[in-house]
Amino acid sequence: MAGSSLGIVFQLTTWGESHGAALGVVVDGCPAGLSLDKSDIQAYLDRRKPGQTRIATPRKEADEVQILSGVFEGRTTGTPISMLVQNTSQRSGDYSEISSYYRPGHADYTFDQKYGFRDYRGGGRSSGRETIGRVAAGAIAAKALSEFGIHLRAYTRSIGPISISMENFDASAILETPTAMPDREASVLTEKYLADCMKEYDSVGGVIECVVDGMPAGLGDPVFEKLDANLAKAIMSIGAVKAVEIGDGVDAALHRGSVNNDPFRIQDDHVVKSSNHAGGILGGISDGSRIILRAHVKPTPSIFSPQQTVNQKGEEIEISIKGRHDPVIVPRAVVVVESMMAVTILDSLLVNACCKMENLKKLYLNA
Amino acid sequence: MAGSSLGIVFQLTTWGESHGAALGVVVDGCPAGLSLDKSDIQAYLDRRKPGQTRIATPRKEADEVQILSGVFEGRTTGTPISMLVQNTSQRSGDYSEISSYYRPGHADYTFDQKYGFRDYRGGGRSSGRETIGRVAAGAIAAKALSEFGIHLRAYTRSIGPISISMENFDASAILETPTAMPDREASVLTEKYLADCMKEYDSVGGVIECVVDGMPAGLGDPVFEKLDANLAKAIMSIGAVKAVEIGDGVDAALHRGSVNNDPFRIQDDHVVKSSNHAGGILGGISDGSRIILRAHVKPTPSIFSPQQTVNQKGEEIEISIKGRHDPVIVPRAVVVVESMMAVTILDSLLVNACCKMENLKKLYLNA
Amino acid sequence: MAGSSLGIVFQLTTWGESHGAALGVVVDGCPAGLSLDKSDIQAYLDRRKPGQTRIATPRKEADEVQILSGVFEGRTTGTPISMLVQNTSQRSGDYSEISSYYRPGHADYTFDQKYGFRDYRGGGRSSGRETIGRVAAGAIAAKALSEFGIHLRAYTRSIGPISISMENFDASAILETPTAMPDREASVLTEKYLADCMKEYDSVGGVIECVVDGMPAGLGDPVFEKLDANLAKAIMSIGAVKAVEIGDGVDAALHRGSVNNDPFRIQDDHVVKSSNHAGGILGGISDGSRIILRAHVKPTPSIFSPQQTVNQKGEEIEISIKGRHDPVIVPRAVVVVESMMAVTILDSLLVNACCKMENLKKLYLNA
Amino acid sequence: MAGSSLGIVFQLTTWGESHGAALGVVVDGCPAGLSLDKSDIQAYLDRRKPGQTRIATPRKEADEVQILSGVFEGRTTGTPISMLVQNTSQRSGDYSEISSYYRPGHADYTFDQKYGFRDYRGGGRSSGRETIGRVAAGAIAAKALSEFGIHLRAYTRSIGPISISMENFDASAILETPTAMPDREASVLTEKYLADCMKEYDSVGGVIECVVDGMPAGLGDPVFEKLDANLAKAIMSIGAVKAVEIGDGVDAALHRGSVNNDPFRIQDDHVVKSSNHAGGILGGISDGSRIILRAHVKPTPSIFSPQQTVNQKGEEIEISIKGRHDPVIVPRAVVVVESMMAVTILDSLLVNACCKMENLKKLYLNA
Repeated sequence: MAGSSLGIVFQLTTWGESHGAALGVVVDGCPAGLSLDKSDIQAYLDRRKPGQTRIATPRKEADEVQILSGVFEGRTTGTPISMLVQNTSQRSGDYSEISSYYRPGHADYTFDQKYGFRDYRGGGRSSGRETIGRVAAGAIAAKALSEFGIHLRAYTRSIGPISISMENFDASAILETPTAMPDREASVLTEKYLADCMKEYDSVGGVIECVVDGMPAGLGDPVFEKLDANLAKAIMSIGAVKAVEIGDGVDAALHRGSVNNDPFRIQDDHVVKSSNHAGGILGGISDGSRIILRAHVKPTPSIFSPQQTVNQKGEEIEISIKGRHDPVIVPRAVVVVESMMAVTILDSLLVNACCKMENLKKLYLNA
Repeated sequence: MAGSSLGIVFQLTTWGESHGAALGVVVDGCPAGLSLDKSDIQAYLDRRKPGQTRIATPRKEADEVQILSGVFEGRTTGTPISMLVQNTSQRSGDYSEISSYYRPGHADYTFDQKYGFRDYRGGGRSSGRETIGRVAAGAIAAKALSEFGIHLRAYTRSIGPISISMENFDASAILETPTAMPDREASVLTEKYLADCMKEYDSVGGVIECVVDGMPAGLGDPVFEKLDANLAKAIMSIGAVKAVEIGDGVDAALHRGSVNNDPFRIQDDHVVKSSNHAGGILGGISDGSRIILRAHVKPTPSIFSPQQTVNQKGEEIEISIKGRHDPVIVPRAVVVVESMMAVTILDSLLVNACCKMENLKKLYLNA
Repeated sequence: MAGSSLGIVFQLTTWGESHGAALGVVVDGCPAGLSLDKSDIQAYLDRRKPGQTRIATPRKEADEVQILSGVFEGRTTGTPISMLVQNTSQRSGDYSEISSYYRPGHADYTFDQKYGFRDYRGGGRSSGRETIGRVAAGAIAAKALSEFGIHLRAYTRSIGPISISMENFDASAILETPTAMPDREASVLTEKYLADCMKEYDSVGGVIECVVDGMPAGLGDPVFEKLDANLAKAIMSIGAVKAVEIGDGVDAALHRGSVNNDPFRIQDDHVVKSSNHAGGILGGISDGSRIILRAHVKPTPSIFSPQQTVNQKGEEIEISIKGRHDPVIVPRAVVVVESMMAVTILDSLLVNACCKMENLKKLYLNA
Repeated sequence: MAGSSLGIVFQLTTWGESHGAALGVVVDGCPAGLSLDKSDIQAYLDRRKPGQTRIATPRKEADEVQILSGVFEGRTTGTPISMLVQNTSQRSGDYSEISSYYRPGHADYTFDQKYGFRDYRGGGRSSGRETIGRVAAGAIAAKALSEFGIHLRAYTRSIGPISISMENFDASAILETPTAMPDREASVLTEKYLADCMKEYDSVGGVIECVVDGMPAGLGDPVFEKLDANLAKAIMSIGAVKAVEIGDGVDAALHRGSVNNDPFRIQDDHVVKSSNHAGGILGGISDGSRIILRAHVKPTPSIFSPQQTVNQKGEEIEISIKGRHDPVIVPRAVVVVESMMAVTILDSLLVNACCKMENLKKLYLNA
């Protein structure tokens, strides 16, 4: 089934395998007239680069995007924007071993069950490199949203047992710490924790939070196209995410109604809320306050420790995964979460344009 | 925007307001040849009836479904199944007050912001009664799935601070306790807790869990149509849900990879997993083990305690919501969660039928 | 497959069989704030009534629509509009004969091949009565379009060998002649022709033309969502239509470019075209001139003359179809064509609202 | 709006402008396990090459396809197949003139009206080069269909006043004549006619016919997803097509029912039809006989003769289009029609797989 497209008006279609010739995305339905150049995209892609050196100068060989269509004289034309990243640095490698067994926590077994075979090189389509397309599309969406005063900020909230402290919150640290934490102290502790984790040949999970400010009220549609429903799908579609929370999320289930309800009040002639347990969404529609979402990310499934598994012949075997793997997925996934939020919110903003006669008369009749 | 449809092949479109003439659903894409009659649907609808008496004989005035199309001589025809429930017992009531202000925790404000006005009677389209259509569709999906040996079971896992104990698990209790808990002891405690809650003019949230057994491996599609992504959307689209977990969910973020990875092994010549932290889904595709999902439900927003809010004139006011309201949404939402799981899994089973040439040759060439 | 829905933002889902309990449609995505009541719908439905007496007072037992949701205090709310017509006048009849064989020109055989069985009563889902839902939706779309100055007019252009003359064109005749011809002379000739046709136990086809005035330029989207592509689909989806032409249509294939190209010129400071061979659409996008479409309709397949066919046992038999059948489909299909044009054009108008940043800034930033 | 995608399960998304860096297509939902290599695609692309020399050895600089993803070890993997053609031979040219006015018969004016500006180089997105993506996708679909014994054949039926004779029908001539006519005599006459046409600085239209043999009965879905409706959309979405006919098409409107109905009979224990006025589709579903479709194509809008038009300043001007233009679109569009037929029929074959319980039990229960 065609599962690589998302969105109703702002629609992205990603393609490509970890070790194929290239990876990319086609973004269709982007409104015409948005200023856009390659650097807007590259800045986002650079945030998903590997490792300890995200704050250092980007390595030359890093994923470099090409814009192949849909932008003319510096502006989007309204037609599909095709973007591509060559898989230059992928090692051809020897995959004869990995091709024959199923790595625990990976999609090897399920792809084989579904399709009868799989591109086993580096995880093929289920590789984290698939998110290159998402991030390239997210960069466009985020730029479009910023023109309406809507700003997204995703960051690492916790890794393993270590959480950021809101008192130490420093937005500039997100892009500067290797953990993507907005708390430099917590980040230092986390680096140590991760070093230990690697020594133990193990990996760990964590939590990514994304907040969105400047939201107009009214985005999202009742019933199945609720904004929170679409955000949940978009975020849960990221490979390693196992839970999604909106606002107070799991805590809301423990609350009393008298606590959980956010009172409305008037501020500067506008309706605002005194609290935001709801995370900016009521009845699936944005209420004008900050959107708050948390994604819970499982540990990197590739670990050096020996693991029990089976091979395609149906034999039980013990394996030990080689290669270089991050001990945690979270820091590199922060920009992926932000991107998926951006594409989802932009799509809801676009479809909302035609939800009432009043809007349409303003556009078509200047009334 | 058309937000009331869900699904690619098995597609439901719900319609209706709390106090309109009727509510219903059109189910399109149901495979032809499924035995179906009204009682299959009614059994599911009866599970979402209000209150303490779910196990008693259904009241005559209860929501009674009519099947208007798509079933002929006891079998589905492959064409749209239209189902309808008359809104006979809705009191016309005096809504002049409620029409003028915004109830905290409800969608009153956001509907007004989106559409310019709203059907304020009983919550209109954002009423819990909208789920009638979901449950009617879910009944069909669950019946179809059962023909493939796929069985769903949703139940209340916790309400406020009281959780079920897996040691006391008794599936028969789900339909017999007023809490929909599969633990009779916990249910009795919960009833007391809810009685206190009502005395305090308050409400509370809780957690619904749904497990699915008999899943074939291979359902769900890579990237955006992942099974977990679609389940997250389907469940988050239920009005009061604020978080969705798959498998270990939020706990996965705290785990080490060595713990979180589920080893594969061989049992009776089949590939199985030694554990199921993943909740039955790897890389967005079912792995053949049990699907596990939890939905975190906020407290009923309608409470008797006085609350601060604003009216349409922009004045801050204090309100006190009248009428009869459940102190907790969870027990009645259990069947809604089960229904949304069923429609999503059936849709994934249907689209999976054409994912490989081998399947198609079996069907078209008897090969 | 779910084939009973159409449209991206303005989305209709029809349901119902000829001899089931009822037929209907759910219209989702209609913009909020459109004045609407039952009479708007009924006026359209009355135009698809049978026979020679379309201009007489409607019979009381005729298809009467109920609006079950989506309209509040006389205006659309933006949520699904569910409409239903009871199948009161359908005779239960004896279908044991028709159930066993395949009527030539009907969908009996293909439904059986597809689904394994069929609701054979009166054609079931493939009956012309399915168009009730289309027309109810079309009435809403046409009303919405009229608020933007867009007006549709469909009429019979020819029946068998008799065509209207443009010199005799009289729009008022469309609703007053039994043929739906805008030419009273041609209509009288046609009535005689049809009487002869019936005497010969035969039926005949014809051509429906629809023109749309007041179109803004810019509706329709490049590549696959071209306005003409979507119109072609919408019109070809009407049971008996076998060809669709836009503008000069089949004649365009015979033209020289120097004739077929429509020169642009300036009139009252606006860009207009000196001719309209293109039928109002260039590159799939409306050019602001009149939309012209023709649908070619096959003869009624139910005829009294004996016909060769086969039965479900695989025996060759001769049949003679009983009952009362119109000798021509065209006059009753005129409003169906108009309806399908209306829903398609409204959908293109809605999705066009968000095609450029300029529009979005006007709506969201009042810029 | 995202208008560059088509299909429900077999889904193509084309992208690219005439003079951009490249053009391409992403094909998602292709079943896994189809043998495929570059030459399958290239053979189709070569058929849309320009001019008089289609039968000669392909020029080296011709559109050469790259497959970037979705094929592994010679077979499709079930994940997106991304294909790309570099725009190597596009001259940068001086478009300052063409950018300022609206060519009659082209989409210049409508793109400007829709988006506010346009990529004017060589027609941008509305260029015939956009069909590269369609043809690349069509090659895959046609190959998949051939594995089920379904074979498509499109050819030129007429150009201007010259039609092929069915008595001279020679399928091998389609790929060998410069006109793509299956009648070598008619082709020679046509070549002369076209030479005259060019001398007169003019262009001409024509008709493309496509027949499909080996169709199973049962493809296509009732109501809006009828096979003929989807074919009509697919074909009308090709830039220059102004009319689409199925079976007898416009002639059906002139027929009597006694002539137009195709009698069923038994042949070799199978149900067949004695005639095929319907063109292989009844009630929107394939009936197992040959599919017949005709597309009416307008003359090339770019002609050397002087034409009246207006520029962006609103001045009436006379223009004379330079450059090298084919006097007729038809021969190069033949493979585009065949491709659009292929993708539409494959999609209907795929979605049909899950239309009845019987099929699903065969797949999931081996029953």
